This record gives sequence, structure tokens and C-alpha cells, in this order.
Amino acid sequence: MSAVVVPAQVSASPAALLQHVRTGRASSRAELVALTGASRNTISSRVDQLIGADLLLEGGRGDSTGGRPPTLLRFNGGAGCVLAVDLGVTSVDVAVTDLSARVLATAGHPIDIAEGPQAVLAEAVRLGRAVLAEAGLADADVRAVGVGVPGPVEFSTGRPSHPPIMPGWHDHPIPEAFGRWPVPVVVDNDVNVMALGEMGVGGSDQDVLVVKVGTGVGCGVVVGGRVYRGAQGSAGDIGHIHVPQDDGRSVLCRCGNTNCLEALASGASLLRDALAAGLPVTSTHDVVALAAHGDGPALELVREAGRTIGTVLAALVNFFNPHRIVVTGGIAQAGLPLLSGIRESVYARAMPLAARTLDITVSDAPELSGRVGAALMAVEGYLAQVRATFG
Amino acid sequence: MSAVVVPAQVSASPAALLQHVRTGRASSRAELVALTGASRNTISSRVDQLIGADLLLEGGRGDSTGGRPPTLLRFNGGAGCVLAVDLGVTSVDVAVTDLSARVLATAGHPIDIAEGPQAVLAEAVRLGRAVLAEAGLADADVRAVGVGVPGPVEFSTGRPSHPPIMPGWHDHPIPEAFGRWPVPVVVDNDVNVMALGEMGVGGSDQDVLVVKVGTGVGCGVVVGGRVYRGAQGSAGDIGHIHVPQDDGRSVLCRCGNTNCLEALASGASLLRDALAAGLPVTSTHDVVALAAHGDGPALELVREAGRTIGTVLAALVNFFNPHRIVVTGGIAQAGLPLLSGIRESVYARAMPLAARTLDITVSDAPELSGRVGAALMAVEGYLAQVRATFG
Repeated sequence: MSAVVVPAQVSASPAALLQHVRTGRASSRAELVALTGASRNTISSRVDQLIGADLLLEGGRGDSTGGRPPTLLRFNGGAGCVLAVDLGVTSVDVAVTDLSARVLATAGHPIDIAEGPQAVLAEAVRLGRAVLAEAGLADADVRAVGVGVPGPVEFSTGRPSHPPIMPGWHDHPIPEAFGRWPVPVVVDNDVNVMALGEMGVGGSDQDVLVVKVGTGVGCGVVVGGRVYRGAQGSAGDIGHIHVPQDDGRSVLCRCGNTNCLEALASGASLLRDALAAGLPVTSTHDVVALAAHGDGPALELVREAGRTIGTVLAALVNFFNPHRIVVTGGIAQAGLPLLSGIRESVYARAMPLAARTLDITVSDAPELSGRVGAALMAVEGYLAQVRATFG
Repeated sequence: MSAVVVPAQVSASPAALLQHVRTGRASSRAELVALTGASRNTISSRVDQLIGADLLLEGGRGDSTGGRPPTLLRFNGGAGCVLAVDLGVTSVDVAVTDLSARVLATAGHPIDIAEGPQAVLAEAVRLGRAVLAEAGLADADVRAVGVGVPGPVEFSTGRPSHPPIMPGWHDHPIPEAFGRWPVPVVVDNDVNVMALGEMGVGGSDQDVLVVKVGTGVGCGVVVGGRVYRGAQGSAGDIGHIHVPQDDGRSVLCRCGNTNCLEALASGASLLRDALAAGLPVTSTHDVVALAAHGDGPALELVREAGRTIGTVLAALVNFFNPHRIVVTGGIAQAGLPLLSGIRESVYARAMPLAARTLDITVSDAPELSGRVGAALMAVEGYLAQVRATFG
């Protein structure tokens, strides 16, 4: 005989019941009973408690399986809102969403992250107040704040840790800037935040790589639906993986090494190579726009960047054997040429078993995944607080 | 404020209590109460149940923290035994261990895995009976069997899945061969098994890479102390990661591609390169022995293999940010020259943050980690059965 497989126990704590309904695993008291194995009485009294706290709504009828059709439960996404802050190297974008991460209002503009934490965070707070006003919401409606930043973060304190492209931000207590709202403030690396955004409200139990191709290149690593961080929290830092060049080409990276992935294939390298090729561009965005309009040389530059990123991903596919890879970030807006370059390298070099059912796609909304992810992270922060209250 | 962090709940089921004591997280009833938050009465009745089933032993006194010193609990490793089978491409090794994975007797010899499952498994069963006899144990003492095989395995059924170097083994129901012992039979890829062996009885909550350098090269991936398998169970399959050669060198791999890691740096490639260099060797083992005796050319070959493996590990360190890397397998017996080659490449190319506290070591007992891992896997299979009985 082979080993006895015992199913993992599914929690029936009030906070867990809320999560089951919110993520779509159950939508009635009967389904919660079936999912958790808890008694009908236990489930009912806990569901009543959650309804009393305005976190669950009851109403409507589901499909009958013979008897009386069950009354449907749903998460009350309208029970409050969260602020989602997406800080980039050159932009700040803020959204207010409901507790289901549905965007209610959004605002943003270019900045320079090097202006430092005081100026940039004051601007984020100002934008937060503006989107609340636009959505007709008050400070008291805010349940949590989520912030994505373009650098490593000590997750437990919300402080950046020696971020290479955020001068002046090391160890800055980002949550304190949002003291206007006395709620949980959760801060994480922008790539991890984007990974949450790509998993969506329902989450996932898959192993996924979310590759951000923006000014730099990074990767959110999702193991069984959860963000994997590694020993120092730097997991997914693929931008400085060495990519040897068969033709002896040597490109200096801002880190001091040569032929790092992001020195060869990133927003910054695309702009450099487009300028060197004499294309009429002044920004990475111009290169992406040219490619989107079918300009031959721009298309080939984007596709070649995809091929280079694909050589690194081929190795990671063998090692990590993910269910899928999602490409996001500014350059992902180039869409198919980037994707086909990546696919070309991955399918040429990854092991057939790992590549067979692998799904490589571009994000549906690369410009939004940072804000949706920050909103979902904020909601999780709020629900952790709920858990501490309800058990 | 930052997000409320709620500690994960620690289970107080009887099977969980057994695991807490077995893995050293608690060694008295009081510590079990403190660890799980369950009542003293609940813990005591469950501990009594486990003592009655001969799974826990009570006796001796611990350190007092003021009052009467607590009576110590320990896992009854002597309550039975398990058989551990380590199948290699060219060897079969079998051990009988107690339930703490302490080796009681061992036996093994060269084979050719291509002789096929009937012949090889019959030999494994014969060796199993021999080690039981040598240890003075009976068939009825066997609680589970663990088997490591050199290829991919569908874990739930214990059947190899298109193993490239195990001709005739695809889909063979390995557990049935051990029908003599009506107990759980757990089968897994040898590299995952070795990873368990390196984690030891106490387990680990770390992120670890266990790199096996034998005839081929593979990697056990441990996330938070548990073996990570990926979408198709092929995670850690690093032997065919492409390693571009600056000097235009092109080495054909048995997979049909060129410049795969194991075509450039493995037991097989070491033997090939040693023969090409005119060294007096007829096996990989000879090369390792020459290096161990300080032979210059053999040392340089081993060190260069380490450097090549290190270039791949440097990329994986950036991506995975492990707490530590353990190198095992036959070539690991070469020790320092292999390790220093690996370290040279990893520290030269991995990001400082990820490499700073990274620990890279060679296994204490590379020749035993397969059998100890198979024993630990068998014990887990037995404890899963206990869990199904006790809840």
C-alpha cells in the first residue's frame, strides 16, 4: 500500500469562515459545514456574528440540491475601503478600493523617488485624501493602507532595507506617514505586491512567477498561493542574475557587475539600445509605443529583450516548475513581441516535463496590478486585525 | 501602525502532540500546554493515549522552573522499525532503522537500474529481509518502507513517471513489490529523499537547497522545512539548466541539448574529462579518490566542476534566497575542492544581500543521506497512518 493521505484540516474559526466566503470557497452555511466539518450550530452562530459585524451579507437563493435552496452568503466588500499606494521610481499612484479590491477612484502623477520619503509620502497622503473625496468617502471609512515600494522591505516593520534605487529611504518608518488613518499599514516590495494583484481576490493555490519588467527586472515568487520571501526577504531578485553572452558582449550594470539580466533586458536597456539605434524616442514608454505601432526596429529590440529574459526564466522553470508565469510592469504593455521572445527562449531551453503545461501570459492590466495588489495586501492587513478580534 | 501579526495556531491533536515531542519542540506535558494553548486536562489525556499505544515514553526529570521538575516525555523510537531503500543508477542500498531513523543494520551492492523493476526490487526486498535478520527483527516489527529512486515519481501512487535513466520503470507500481510488509510504502525522487535526510529528525523551518552531485546533478528544494515539488513534481531539476560557455565550448548532453549543467559538471563529466586528461582512472570514484589524495590535475577538475555548478547556484541564490545550501552525492565526498569551486562562483556572482549569511556546506555523510532520508520518509508515512487512527 502507499502512504495514507490525510486531508488538511480546514479551519472553522470566524475569521477563517470570512476568508472562505471572501475567496469563493463557500457561499452558504451548508457549504461552510461541508468544507470545515464543523457542526451546523457552530457555523450558524459564527456566521451570525460576522453578519452582526457587517462583514458578511446574506440574501438571494443558491441552486437547490434537492431540498430548500440555500440562502447565499457573500463578503461585504462595501463595509469599508482601503487605500492602495503604488510607489515607483518615477511615479506615485494611489487608489481607494472597496474591501473586494474594486477600484473606486484613482489618482497619480510622475515623481522622482529620490526626492526622499518626507516629500513623496506627503504626496501619497495628499493623493489618498483626494481619492477618498472623489469617491465620497471619509477618513473613518478607511480600514487599512497598503503600500508597494520599488525596493527591499523589512516586512514586519514596513521599513525599506538598503534599497538601491531609493536614496534616503533606508530604514524610514513608512507606516508613520499614514498616521492620519489609525489603521493597519502594510508595506512590501512592489514586485511582491504585483504578485498579489495578479493572484486576485480569490487567491490561488498554485506556484507562480510574476515577472515585472519595468525600469528594472524583478520577480514575485508565489508558492502554493502565498508570496515566498526567502531567508533575507530578497527572493525573486532576478535582475542581477548573470547572463553570459556567446558573442563576447560585455555590458556594465549599475550594480558594478557586467551582463546582469537588467543591464541587458529592461526598460532602461531598451531606451539605451533604441537611442543607440537612432530611433526617435526620449523614454522607455516611447519605445513601447513604437513597438505597439509595429515599428520594425523597436519590435525587434523588445523581442530580443524578451529572449534574454526567457533564457533566465528557462533555468527558473527547470528549478521551480511553476504552474504559470505572468509578465507585468511597464514593458509588459508591449504585449505580444515581449511575450513571444520570452516564450521562444523558455520553450527552447526548459525541460519538456516542466514546460509542457506551463502557461506564460502578459498581465491583463499591467498598469493596475500594483494598485490592486496593494489593496489586497491592505485588506489582508485589515482581516488580520479582524482575526485578532474574533479569533 | 503596521499589520497585526497573529501567531499561527499550533495543533494539539494526538498526532500533532506526538510530532511536537518527536521533533523536539516540547518535552513535557507543561511544554505541550504552553506550545498549543490547549488545557492541561486535554493534553494529559492525549499523552496518556499515546503512552498507552507505546508511541511516547515518560520518565526522567527535566529542569525545574521553580516548582516540581517536570517528568520528561520522549518519542519511543524503539516502538518498531522501518526499511529504507536507496536505489541509485548503479547501486542498491537498504537499511533498517528505528523510528528515530537510527541505522540498525545496512546492506547494499552495485546493480544496474536498467535490469528493470522486477529484478531490482526483488533484490531490494531480499536485502530488506537480510538487514532485518541482522538486526534481530521480524517482519511484524516493520512499520513502513521508504524508497528513493533516481527519477521523477508520481508521489501519490509511488510510480516513476517517464524516468530518463530508469528504462522499463515508467508507471511501475513500486509499492506492490513490498507487499510482504503490509505497511505504508512511500516512494519519492532520490534528491527529495536526500533533502529530508539532510533536514534530519528535527526537521527545519528554513529554506534550503540540497544539491546532489552524483552521476547526474539534481536539487532538493526545501521551503519552510518542507520539500517543494512544483506543478508537475519536477522542481529542482537543475541538471539541464543551460550554462553558456564564454570560450565557445559546446558539450553534447545525453538529453540532446548542449552545455547542460550535468554535461559540464557531474560524475559522468568528471570521468570523461579525467580520461581525456590521461589520468589513471576507470570510474568517477577513482577521480574523487585521486582528488582526495591531493593529485593536482584531479583536484583542478573537481574544483572546476564546482565553479560551473556555482554559476548556476549563484542565479538560484538570487532567485530563491535560501538560508543554506548543502552539497551531497558521490562527488561531494571530494569535499573541500568541490566546495571551494562552488563558493568561488556563488560569492562572485550572487547579490550581497542574499549571499551575506548564506551557509554553503558539504553533507556530513553524503553516502548515508539517501538512506536516512528514506527512513524519515517512511516514519512520516507511518505517522500519517497513526494520525488517521488517532486524529
